[in-house]
Amino acid sequence: MKILPKVSRFLHGGDYSPEQWPSKQWREDIDKMEQAGVNALTLGVFAWSALEPEEGVYTMDWLGEVMDLLAARGHHAILATPSAAQPAWMSKAYPQVLRSPIGGQRNRHGMRVNFCVSYPYYRQKVAAMNTELARRFGKHPALVAWHISNEFFDPCYCSNCEEAFRQWLRARYGSLDQLNHSWNTAFWSHTFTDWSQIEAPGGTGENSCEALWVNWKRFSSGQYASFIRNEVIPIRKHSPGIPVTTNLMGTHEPLDYWRLAAELDFVSMDAYPFYDCRPEMLDHGIEHSFVFDLMRSFKRGNPWALMECTPSSANWMPFMKLKRPQIHRLGSMQAVAHGSDSVMYFQWRQGMGGREKFHGAVLDHTGSTQTRVFKEIAEVGEWLQKMTPVLGLRTKADVALLYDWENRWAIEAACGPTKDYKQYVPTCVAHYKGFWSQGISVDVIQSTEDFGSYKLLVVPMLYMLRPGVAERMEAFVRDGGTLVATYWTGLVDEDDRLFDTSFPGPLAPMLGIENEETDILYPDEHAGVEALPGNSLGLEGGWKATTFCALIESKGAEVLARYTSEFYAGSPAVTRNLYGKGTAYYIGFRAGHDFHAAFYGKLATQLGLQRALEAPLPEGVTVQVREDGESRFLFLMNFSGVEAVVELGSVNATELVSGQANVKQVYLEPYGVEILRVH
Amino acid sequence: MKILPKVSRFLHGGDYSPEQWPSKQWREDIDKMEQAGVNALTLGVFAWSALEPEEGVYTMDWLGEVMDLLAARGHHAILATPSAAQPAWMSKAYPQVLRSPIGGQRNRHGMRVNFCVSYPYYRQKVAAMNTELARRFGKHPALVAWHISNEFFDPCYCSNCEEAFRQWLRARYGSLDQLNHSWNTAFWSHTFTDWSQIEAPGGTGENSCEALWVNWKRFSSGQYASFIRNEVIPIRKHSPGIPVTTNLMGTHEPLDYWRLAAELDFVSMDAYPFYDCRPEMLDHGIEHSFVFDLMRSFKRGNPWALMECTPSSANWMPFMKLKRPQIHRLGSMQAVAHGSDSVMYFQWRQGMGGREKFHGAVLDHTGSTQTRVFKEIAEVGEWLQKMTPVLGLRTKADVALLYDWENRWAIEAACGPTKDYKQYVPTCVAHYKGFWSQGISVDVIQSTEDFGSYKLLVVPMLYMLRPGVAERMEAFVRDGGTLVATYWTGLVDEDDRLFDTSFPGPLAPMLGIENEETDILYPDEHAGVEALPGNSLGLEGGWKATTFCALIESKGAEVLARYTSEFYAGSPAVTRNLYGKGTAYYIGFRAGHDFHAAFYGKLATQLGLQRALEAPLPEGVTVQVREDGESRFLFLMNFSGVEAVVELGSVNATELVSGQANVKQVYLEPYGVEILRVH
Amino acid sequence: MKILPKVSRFLHGGDYSPEQWPSKQWREDIDKMEQAGVNALTLGVFAWSALEPEEGVYTMDWLGEVMDLLAARGHHAILATPSAAQPAWMSKAYPQVLRSPIGGQRNRHGMRVNFCVSYPYYRQKVAAMNTELARRFGKHPALVAWHISNEFFDPCYCSNCEEAFRQWLRARYGSLDQLNHSWNTAFWSHTFTDWSQIEAPGGTGENSCEALWVNWKRFSSGQYASFIRNEVIPIRKHSPGIPVTTNLMGTHEPLDYWRLAAELDFVSMDAYPFYDCRPEMLDHGIEHSFVFDLMRSFKRGNPWALMECTPSSANWMPFMKLKRPQIHRLGSMQAVAHGSDSVMYFQWRQGMGGREKFHGAVLDHTGSTQTRVFKEIAEVGEWLQKMTPVLGLRTKADVALLYDWENRWAIEAACGPTKDYKQYVPTCVAHYKGFWSQGISVDVIQSTEDFGSYKLLVVPMLYMLRPGVAERMEAFVRDGGTLVATYWTGLVDEDDRLFDTSFPGPLAPMLGIENEETDILYPDEHAGVEALPGNSLGLEGGWKATTFCALIESKGAEVLARYTSEFYAGSPAVTRNLYGKGTAYYIGFRAGHDFHAAFYGKLATQLGLQRALEAPLPEGVTVQVREDGESRFLFLMNFSGVEAVVELGSVNATELVSGQANVKQVYLEPYGVEILRVH
Repeated sequence: MKILPKVSRFLHGGDYSPEQWPSKQWREDIDKMEQAGVNALTLGVFAWSALEPEEGVYTMDWLGEVMDLLAARGHHAILATPSAAQPAWMSKAYPQVLRSPIGGQRNRHGMRVNFCVSYPYYRQKVAAMNTELARRFGKHPALVAWHISNEFFDPCYCSNCEEAFRQWLRARYGSLDQLNHSWNTAFWSHTFTDWSQIEAPGGTGENSCEALWVNWKRFSSGQYASFIRNEVIPIRKHSPGIPVTTNLMGTHEPLDYWRLAAELDFVSMDAYPFYDCRPEMLDHGIEHSFVFDLMRSFKRGNPWALMECTPSSANWMPFMKLKRPQIHRLGSMQAVAHGSDSVMYFQWRQGMGGREKFHGAVLDHTGSTQTRVFKEIAEVGEWLQKMTPVLGLRTKADVALLYDWENRWAIEAACGPTKDYKQYVPTCVAHYKGFWSQGISVDVIQSTEDFGSYKLLVVPMLYMLRPGVAERMEAFVRDGGTLVATYWTGLVDEDDRLFDTSFPGPLAPMLGIENEETDILYPDEHAGVEALPGNSLGLEGGWKATTFCALIESKGAEVLARYTSEFYAGSPAVTRNLYGKGTAYYIGFRAGHDFHAAFYGKLATQLGLQRALEAPLPEGVTVQVREDGESRFLFLMNFSGVEAVVELGSVNATELVSGQANVKQVYLEPYGVEILRVH
Repeated sequence: MKILPKVSRFLHGGDYSPEQWPSKQWREDIDKMEQAGVNALTLGVFAWSALEPEEGVYTMDWLGEVMDLLAARGHHAILATPSAAQPAWMSKAYPQVLRSPIGGQRNRHGMRVNFCVSYPYYRQKVAAMNTELARRFGKHPALVAWHISNEFFDPCYCSNCEEAFRQWLRARYGSLDQLNHSWNTAFWSHTFTDWSQIEAPGGTGENSCEALWVNWKRFSSGQYASFIRNEVIPIRKHSPGIPVTTNLMGTHEPLDYWRLAAELDFVSMDAYPFYDCRPEMLDHGIEHSFVFDLMRSFKRGNPWALMECTPSSANWMPFMKLKRPQIHRLGSMQAVAHGSDSVMYFQWRQGMGGREKFHGAVLDHTGSTQTRVFKEIAEVGEWLQKMTPVLGLRTKADVALLYDWENRWAIEAACGPTKDYKQYVPTCVAHYKGFWSQGISVDVIQSTEDFGSYKLLVVPMLYMLRPGVAERMEAFVRDGGTLVATYWTGLVDEDDRLFDTSFPGPLAPMLGIENEETDILYPDEHAGVEALPGNSLGLEGGWKATTFCALIESKGAEVLARYTSEFYAGSPAVTRNLYGKGTAYYIGFRAGHDFHAAFYGKLATQLGLQRALEAPLPEGVTVQVREDGESRFLFLMNFSGVEAVVELGSVNATELVSGQANVKQVYLEPYGVEILRVH
Repeated sequence: MKILPKVSRFLHGGDYSPEQWPSKQWREDIDKMEQAGVNALTLGVFAWSALEPEEGVYTMDWLGEVMDLLAARGHHAILATPSAAQPAWMSKAYPQVLRSPIGGQRNRHGMRVNFCVSYPYYRQKVAAMNTELARRFGKHPALVAWHISNEFFDPCYCSNCEEAFRQWLRARYGSLDQLNHSWNTAFWSHTFTDWSQIEAPGGTGENSCEALWVNWKRFSSGQYASFIRNEVIPIRKHSPGIPVTTNLMGTHEPLDYWRLAAELDFVSMDAYPFYDCRPEMLDHGIEHSFVFDLMRSFKRGNPWALMECTPSSANWMPFMKLKRPQIHRLGSMQAVAHGSDSVMYFQWRQGMGGREKFHGAVLDHTGSTQTRVFKEIAEVGEWLQKMTPVLGLRTKADVALLYDWENRWAIEAACGPTKDYKQYVPTCVAHYKGFWSQGISVDVIQSTEDFGSYKLLVVPMLYMLRPGVAERMEAFVRDGGTLVATYWTGLVDEDDRLFDTSFPGPLAPMLGIENEETDILYPDEHAGVEALPGNSLGLEGGWKATTFCALIESKGAEVLARYTSEFYAGSPAVTRNLYGKGTAYYIGFRAGHDFHAAFYGKLATQLGLQRALEAPLPEGVTVQVREDGESRFLFLMNFSGVEAVVELGSVNATELVSGQANVKQVYLEPYGVEILRVH
């Protein structure tokens, strides 16, 4: 399904700030788009000062002129609302518009994303601005999408937000008694006897109540969702049929993106990998594949849009190492491989001054079309043109991996079992890698999504079980599904309150085990694990356990592997429990890729999970798929520094870009990418 | 002497928070005590919200019910006053109750130990609360001790405290002229011309006046002492004969525990070693022995109480590594060996939520009595029962080692001679190890205690000589005592003002040396030191000097060892001076254990210091003694990871726990412990 | 030219605070000066509390008494104004006198240099104090110089300063439109529509506007300059002919010392090298030579004064390692070699208490004249006496190296191209070392100084070209000069706005190259560079490029060296362009000393740059020159830990200190120094 009804090609372009340039420059800049193979510009991000230079005085002609120029050349415009940076006059006249970071002391004016998400005046002003913009440009021929604000960032901790939080808590808990019970506030005498006693966490205030932290982030995510809703209402009214998005930032910790995604017509994302052609780049690439699959999963497999990336390097990185030749192509195709229907840049043209003047751009500050970077972008433009048949295609995944924001907050808020080595996200990515390296598609979902369509559910470190999740997991397995859970799963409920049974709490019966203690190893230590002879999964050999070693007892589960060292040598490390028509595995230790490759390899074979290609893939290479009932496209990508050859076996394929037919094997140069159409 | 008149067994138990549980749970929990070999619970720590949910409304029936349950089963209660965490209603209504950390900005409500130690209203409310508690429970049959507040922590820096400080200074100095002189405020134009100009140190204020820092900490320690006094008055009135304590935290820097200990009937302590079965554990164990001997010394050799420890791990540690089997027994016996008459835990039962739900506990959150941890505790309970004859016994030490809080503050406040390598406490422990490894008992005292009963006084880095200390040390040596001082001793008076003579100031004549300069080496450097042939102590060989190398000149002292490198090669490094009937040694350099072992070994022989056993001890093994005129018990403890055999020689001993008589040698497994009754 | 008209010998002495001592001490202390070879004391630094103990009441007799004592013995006094530390009564009565560090929150009283540079009351009080001091002591026979305040430190960020900043901006830019354009404030909607919207940068406010940062520091440097001017007016009026200085601190980042130097009659400096006799000491010594040459350049080659150094160690260093014997002599002679006409200490006598009581001093706290340190100082005193003919001599440099404060601020404010490895100052020093190791004198100047008198202009990383600089560089080369520029040069104008041409902006035509991209390498990476066969400079061999690799294209320049690795292997790395009568070099990469030694060695030969001695110098040895038309003195200094022999060749020289004539070669012990008079 296409995400932009008016567009039938890959969007290729970038952010442009005409308000930084004299008008004569606009035509010149836009004239260069075609040469770059570019067809779209994002306008208006951070343009409030130019759109409303004094309160109530709107100056939008300049924007109209630029949009007309785009339309005249058949180019597209994505129009941003300017709420990510209120103008200085507003901060001066209405200081409550300023954001308060943790601690609650209001910022002064400056930087960006420096507004209070709850302040009513600001919401009114944003609605008025958007009304004005949508009225004027909502049906403009160049307009293809709305871009709400920019990179929502962090909760505001001001007194307005605190008051809204108290209202939200009243609605959630009904009574203080219920809240006190759920949060176990009797601990350290934290019992609340009046709603007014509840304050934002952190800073010089309450740092020791995990339930407060988790609920504050829950509330704040909701505030941003309603902030978006407030932005969208006038747009939907005056610009019907034009889809709405905002640019997300991967697994950005502070905001539950599922809540934001629900307000949007399609999802978009800004991606800034540092692809530096060193060995670490492989795992960094896999992290980005994971994140891109998360983007695709927000809208249940629909395409999304890569809204920003840099064609060379990002100036805020510690080292502006130039992207080596063709690395930008690899990164662009990776996004498309995982569902993006666009490759957009920050930025179309470097500014002459300010914080990001050294940030990579299609046009440098002189506007040259002869630079190395410009030429690489033009080549990506050619590829995208040839890839038009891929537009709108989806990806079908047999596997879902749970990555859950609320769980993450709870894990990070918890005091214990380790301060700096909890590593929830890296653990999710490590499990994901078990599939990526086999070319098996994975959806990345939160725990409250539907599990019905999957064969395999991978559940790393699901410390917090939100309401109904345990029951739904049980039903999934009982009905024939396969589930893999790990150590540090099933400890607390949605308010970070322990379940009153042994760990893994309500999941224990399904998993067929009990977890009395969890040993934590120092970073320079490991425990041994070995497969039990004749185990039903066919695991063989041994592995290292790091950081987490759950001490478990089988309550009916088969032991697949056991510890070989420490005082718990001989006790179960990996188990398998038949439950209803399905199977539930438990991995008791933090494993490396050698274990994940072996374990998920066996599992893929047993469950018949769909692979992009049947043959094993070289190290560092993945294949990702986009398809519908009719067409099937394979993206072969090499994230390693050595060349690789991928055997296609019986597949009948054509190289999409070169047009070469009957391809039997694909040669990939280091960091190379090829796209195949499979017949 | 027993510390608890009503109790004739080792106290074994832990903190319990019935207010976190429904009342039906109480009986179940208490029913399990006997099974764990446990006989006491600490109640009421952090219970203010439950005891006074709104101002002036006391709700104490729940506490009575729990105490009755304990009494009914013959168990003991330690009753805590709840002042360590004021309720939210109080912070809201009386914001001055909140503590101001360094910098003077008041905290918001939250965390714990978040009250101002000087605020009159709070002191009144605490007195009223304690009156109420003591009236109601002061003569309860279960009650065996009062536990004042919890883990007093840090000075408050608010304006109320500042004003109290100014009053305290007026009383101390009489006039600003005297203060200006003592503090040498003419430096950097810091002269005060009005008392109101004096503010709390730190934050955005005065950071450069050492005398201000030292006196502020002196004052603050006094404030906590008077805070305790205010707590104790109603208790003594309404609960006569029930001893009072508070739980100290070892060598906690900010408060002079000698001042707090003076207000208490007996001393108690919370101990959280990370005994992780790695080589570093040996020195960490010795640190704890040092601290435990400090506890014993507060009340001149009387027993004390281990008030908290964890049976598995503490959740706030960077890594919750599980205590390996029997490690908990070693830690428990170690405390008893050094004078504790209790082994108490935080906590009896894990809470269902809040900051410490993952902290080790006797009962886990399910209340299971089948866990590994529960069983280990039950075994410790059995041991303690058999050890009843040890109860109340003391330890006689020939050696006193000086660890002085005021000196520590002054060393740490000083700018120079090294920023991060002053290491006063580790230096004290390093000297202590010289005795620990020989099985020689040591008292750890401050400089103002009586030296009369000791043969040997060890004085590491006594930078600050408080009034009368030099004179009393001279008298001690003149009368036949032996004293060992080190580099960085005798520089300043109690206001951090230099003595107007050469270092080591007023101690120079007794030590027979002068110390013109002190060289500081980088961490990767060392200087050589070697014994002089034929020196009177019989020292032989060579050692490394690190960080501190005092350049000294003998003014009559014998040179025992000299430097062999740096530009001061050949100059004295260790000296010995006969003074009156006694002897004074000076160690000019920071030494390692090889030197301390050799030096204190020779000294022990020369002085005939009493050893627990005559034979040398294996590495990592110590023997500690508790005794009275009739009985003598030896605690043999192995802090190393290898097994050890200790030869008893002519000692006639019985193993206390196993009952085996006529033991000639003791086998200690790695981290093993045995207790002998010597006849 | 002598800097002190009344003095005809090297000034040797130190800071003295008589106000910290009873008056009877003064005579004793001053009696010891002659023994130390000392002839001058600096009085009154931080003496405000003693000079005006309550508002309007001046007490200056004590100071008069001390100055009379000095005069009576023929000694000199440098009189300091006390503004570096206002008294406590003033902070209490006029809290706006307190400084606000970054963030704008006012400090409390304490520390030092804790005043607001803009507050009118303080300026009035300082003027009144100085009037009083100058009236009373301005013509005192002992007085030889005025010492304004002490170690000006950091901008104040208070609201008074902010308001002054706004006035300054109005004057600078005329209109907000101009400012908005110059600063490109349209970026992130930072457009100002009212002057009142402009605030001080940093803290919780604006951190993302580089032009704001650069201009704030420009403004603040001007505020300190006008603060000095305000101090100086009454002094010049009442103390005619007595020169004025303040003690600078090398390359202290926050203040543009060229602005401060312009207000002074002569420049003085406090130097605290940590000369620790380890290999790193060599480069640290070169840094100090660089800084000393900067001091000499402030007043166009005139002598300056070493106002503070420590004779042993500084207590605020992380390790108070004692200076090894004769190291102090090396450091003292180094300052003189580079133009100092004094060796002054902090401090003459250690104070009895306060922050710096452990700081090195001529007299220790007991006043002993028998210490090792005292004797070393006395020896330096003897040397200085014999060196009287050197007094007032200058140094003639063929080479100027640009170190520019405004450029530094801009580089450090910039986001990119690397966060922690910009290293502007170390890069300047690395180029400087190319000359130091050849014994070639260098002036260190800012970009707005006159280039006319030099043969060679070295321009490392001149990111910001201030107005007229490019034109003046072009003129310099066109007229026959030689200029060497490096990567990261010529990017922005004085408001951090990019030039609208390719880099290196307006310097591109002269350099004959264009710089499209700059690759940044990680710290563990390097690229290869090799000389092109037959290049016109005669460079041979290869080198490593680290961090910065400019990718350049020749637009007419000869390529002297090229890259040999990375994707830009083969492209130019070093170029040479003939321009008018001169030559312009461009070094595209960050080089090590091997390259600089080779490159500047070739250049020195080609250009005939004057060397102190013709023969090559041993590693770690430099020779510096002071001379006038008649006399020429060579300072041979060995900064390495191995002995060295320097061949004098045809030079006819006499050892100044020993008096030995006809010296043909000089033996230098490790860290040794010799001074030759050349005939």
